[in-house]
Amino acid sequence: MHRTKVRVVEDVLDANNTIARANREDFDRHGVTVVNLMSAPGAGKTRLLERALDGLAEAGVRAAVLEGDVQGSYDADRLSLLHIPVVQLNTDGGFGGECHLDANMVRSAIPSLPLADIDLLVIENVGNLVCPAEFRVGEDARIMVCSVTEGEDKPLKYPLMFRACELVIINKIDLLEHLDFDLERLEANLDAVHPGVERVRVSARTGDGVDGIREWLVRTTERASAVA
Amino acid sequence: MHRTKVRVVEDVLDANNTIARANREDFDRHGVTVVNLMSAPGAGKTRLLERALDGLAEAGVRAAVLEGDVQGSYDADRLSLLHIPVVQLNTDGGFGGECHLDANMVRSAIPSLPLADIDLLVIENVGNLVCPAEFRVGEDARIMVCSVTEGEDKPLKYPLMFRACELVIINKIDLLEHLDFDLERLEANLDAVHPGVERVRVSARTGDGVDGIREWLVRTTERASAVA
Repeated sequence: MHRTKVRVVEDVLDANNTIARANREDFDRHGVTVVNLMSAPGAGKTRLLERALDGLAEAGVRAAVLEGDVQGSYDADRLSLLHIPVVQLNTDGGFGGECHLDANMVRSAIPSLPLADIDLLVIENVGNLVCPAEFRVGEDARIMVCSVTEGEDKPLKYPLMFRACELVIINKIDLLEHLDFDLERLEANLDAVHPGVERVRVSARTGDGVDGIREWLVRTTERASAVA
Repeated sequence: MHRTKVRVVEDVLDANNTIARANREDFDRHGVTVVNLMSAPGAGKTRLLERALDGLAEAGVRAAVLEGDVQGSYDADRLSLLHIPVVQLNTDGGFGGECHLDANMVRSAIPSLPLADIDLLVIENVGNLVCPAEFRVGEDARIMVCSVTEGEDKPLKYPLMFRACELVIINKIDLLEHLDFDLERLEANLDAVHPGVERVRVSARTGDGVDGIREWLVRTTERASAVA
């Protein structure tokens, strides 16, 4: 029975990768860099986007957000205040309440996205440390946000997620002094599963370190454009 | 295609419920009360158990823990210091790296559990706010832990999880003074999706409020025993 299950999982991921490549071609045709933003629920993805996307137009990058949630549009409503295109994608509408975005869901949203008018699309995934890492959606890069309130052990407990990303954002550092949290130990655990992965320490609340995210987004957008 | 997918999901949940009933019968035969403990990653489930299970034997309840993780045994290692039976269940061993426990996984662990010698089994689920709520495992009751660092909007964004539980533990209240967090708004959102659900405000770090969890566990164990 286990072998059958693994086989089904492989078929699902194969099908997903085929659709992800189709998404990738659509994004490439319009010269759009795509970043898949992942984290546990409540790690601060939306607040970080509010901070990091503000001022990105001045840096020459026109951004849009594809907002993934099981249901509701709370984050999309917040981000729409930035006056950038925001498209909501709910996984409960016909998708069975999935705990992650997959390539097919993102594909269904492409007609709603102004690809011709943007340089960067940030896809905010459903808050979850397991399944989002298994499903490519056609992105250039992946960002993983972890918060210092979640404990130092998360890279060891959810290694695929921390291995499948190009940038790790360590958020909520303004709370460090009020926690029994060892930042060195988190980074050591991070290096144990993804040696040397680029990382940035930030506080979405105070804005501390957010410049580093903005610079990374600009750099990643330029690099992807140069390759395309 | 969407209809097919919904049908597959229903079949999976039907099969799961059948196995959950078999688990339930095994638990009932031994008079064991079972609590399914769920939360987002890093909300503090393990630390709460370290606090709440300590002293439970003195209250007349012999507890054991079934520890669910994608991989590793970090939490089980911590809990084994309590000198109670702790059994590790990894979802990556033959289960495809699932983001939740299901009835079949729990069933596979039953032979390892000392059911004849315990009154209460706490099943610590994989940290995830979506799928664990969809899979009954044969439990009497469900506890949902949310942390005040996760934001007030979580009940609205993950309503099934907050609806499918008998107790909501609001954790990390020691951090409230350092956050822009409105506890009244969290509770209003909670009542919007699960009116009047029992709740307790705690800090696993300071121990504040943990007595309330211990009392709830004792009460739930006694009530289930009286019914059985």
